[in-house]
Amino acid sequence: MGKLLIVGTVAFDEIETPFGKTDKILGGAATFIGLSASQFNVETGIVSVVGGDFPQSDIEMLQNKGIDTTGIEIVEDGKTFFWKGKYRNDLNSRDTLVTDLNVLADFKPLVPKHFTDTDFLMLGNLHPTVQMDVIKQIPVRPKLVVLDTMNFWMDHALNELKEVIAKIDVITINDEEARQLSGEYSLVKAAEIIQKMGPKYVVIKKGEHGALLFHDGKVFFAPALPLEEVFDPTGAGDTFAGGFIGYLTSTNDISFENMKRAVIFGSNMASFCVEKFGTERMKELTRQEIQLRLRQFKELTQFEIELA
Amino acid sequence: MGKLLIVGTVAFDEIETPFGKTDKILGGAATFIGLSASQFNVETGIVSVVGGDFPQSDIEMLQNKGIDTTGIEIVEDGKTFFWKGKYRNDLNSRDTLVTDLNVLADFKPLVPKHFTDTDFLMLGNLHPTVQMDVIKQIPVRPKLVVLDTMNFWMDHALNELKEVIAKIDVITINDEEARQLSGEYSLVKAAEIIQKMGPKYVVIKKGEHGALLFHDGKVFFAPALPLEEVFDPTGAGDTFAGGFIGYLTSTNDISFENMKRAVIFGSNMASFCVEKFGTERMKELTRQEIQLRLRQFKELTQFEIELA
Repeated sequence: MGKLLIVGTVAFDEIETPFGKTDKILGGAATFIGLSASQFNVETGIVSVVGGDFPQSDIEMLQNKGIDTTGIEIVEDGKTFFWKGKYRNDLNSRDTLVTDLNVLADFKPLVPKHFTDTDFLMLGNLHPTVQMDVIKQIPVRPKLVVLDTMNFWMDHALNELKEVIAKIDVITINDEEARQLSGEYSLVKAAEIIQKMGPKYVVIKKGEHGALLFHDGKVFFAPALPLEEVFDPTGAGDTFAGGFIGYLTSTNDISFENMKRAVIFGSNMASFCVEKFGTERMKELTRQEIQLRLRQFKELTQFEIELA
Repeated sequence: MGKLLIVGTVAFDEIETPFGKTDKILGGAATFIGLSASQFNVETGIVSVVGGDFPQSDIEMLQNKGIDTTGIEIVEDGKTFFWKGKYRNDLNSRDTLVTDLNVLADFKPLVPKHFTDTDFLMLGNLHPTVQMDVIKQIPVRPKLVVLDTMNFWMDHALNELKEVIAKIDVITINDEEARQLSGEYSLVKAAEIIQKMGPKYVVIKKGEHGALLFHDGKVFFAPALPLEEVFDPTGAGDTFAGGFIGYLTSTNDISFENMKRAVIFGSNMASFCVEKFGTERMKELTRQEIQLRLRQFKELTQFEIELA
C-alpha cells in the first residue's frame, strides 16, 4: 500500500449559503484531502496543527477513516484556525467574513519519522515557506509531489511561492489563479508558462466547469458532474485534489494515462463533497457510491466515433 | 443524401475584438449553420432574405459549398440585415452597437417546393412567428426539428416562443437563456423543465465551457477544445448547431448515442469558427482538418477505467 503524506490546514469553518448556515464545523484543506484520499487503498498521514479547542471526536473520526494523525500537533493553549464565509446566490463567488489564523500563525510542520519515506506528497494550500519546509524534511524525494495554492500567496509571497513551485511535479490551481500566475488569459498558454516554472503537470480547476490537465503539449478534460443542486462548495477543490492523489497513490502509476483517470476520480469525489455542508457528505461516503458515480462520468463523457 | 433545410439570417456583421476590427463582412445565423452543415454529406438549403446590397459573390460562395440558395429572397431595393458588436477583453461578453433589421423587418419566409419534404429542419434564431411559419409550410413533419433562440425573444415574444417550442424536438440555447426560460438556476433542473415545454432534447451551450445534451434523465457533455487563442466568437453557437444537425442529417440517425456524436461534431466545428474573423475560417475548412481535430477531442475526453 502506497504512502501518502498530506500537509495542510485542519480547521473550523462557519459557512453560510443560500440554503442555510452552519455553526463552527470541521473544515480545512488537509481534512478534505484526507477524507477524499482515504477512499482509496493508501496509507495516509496528515501534518497539521490544531488548538486545545479541537474535538477529540474529530481526530478519532479521521483515525477511523484510516488516517494517521500523529502529525497533527495539538497546541493545548491555542485556538484552531477559523474561517467564516458567505456564498452569494450563484454559489460561484463567496465573501470571507473572518479569518483567524490562531495556532496556524506559528505553525512549524513536523513530518513524523514513519512518513519521511512517503511515496506521494500532497502540499495543501498554506504559506509556501511551510510547504517548502515539509519538502526539506523528506530526505528521499517522493515519487510525486503535488501542490495546491491560491491567489493570496501570489499577492503576498510570490517569490517564496515560485521557489516551492520549482520543486514540485503537479500544481493544482483555479482558472483565475492560473491567469494571475502566468500573466496569460488563455488557459492553454497559461499552462505552458507554468510548466516552465517547474511543475511538469498543471491541473486547472474550473469549479462547476470541470478541470483541465496539461502536460507536455497534451491536455485532458474532466467535467464536473451536472448536479440538480449544489449545496455547499466548501472543500470541493481540496476534495478533488484528494481524489486525484489518492488514486495515483493507490495505483502507484504516474503515467499521463493514469493521471487522466486520477482527475476523473478527483471530479467524482468533488461531486459528492458539494452535496452537503462541510465534510458531512464525505464522512458517510461509500466506495460503492463512488463506483456508481464513475458509471455516470462514463455516460457523461464517453462516445464512439470512428476516425476516417 | 438526407435533406436539411435551414431558416435564419444571412447578414452583414461588423465586429470589433481585442485583436482587431472588421468592415462589413458576411455573417448571419443561417450562413454559419449552412457553412458548418455543408461539411457533411447533406443536401442543404437556406431560407432567408437579403437586400440588393448583398454581393452575388457571397451567394456563389454558398452555392460552391453545395448549399441551395433558391430560398434566399433578394429584395432589390432593400438593405441586408446588419449587426455591429464589440467584444470585451475576455471575449465572453459583447456589446451590440447597431442592429439594423432592414429587409428582415418584413421577412415572410418561403420554403422552396423542393425542400417542403425536408428530412431535417433547423430553425435558426429569428422571431418565433417566423420559425412557426416555416414549420407550417412543411406538410409532412420532418424527422427532426431543431430550434435555436435567444433571450431577446424570451423578453419580447415569450408566448409565441413557447408555442413554437412546443412543436420542436431539440432546442439549443445558452446557459443564461436556459435559466431565464425555466426559472431554475441549476441547469439539470432547467433542462427538465424545458423538456416539459415540448422539446425532448435540450442542448445547453456554455461557450468556452462546452455544451450539455439532456434527454429523458440522461446527460452528455461535449467540452470546448481548449485553444491557444480565441480570435472572434461570432457565429460559434450557430456553427455548433450546424455541425450538430449536419452530422445527424448525414447519418440519418436520431438515437441518443448518435446525438452524443453530433454534439462532439458541433463542438469540433465551433472550435474552428472562433479562430478567425466571421466566416473566414469556415470558408476554407477541409474535412481532413475536422478529422484531425476529432482525434484531439478523443484525446481530450476519452479515458479507460474498469468499473469495479
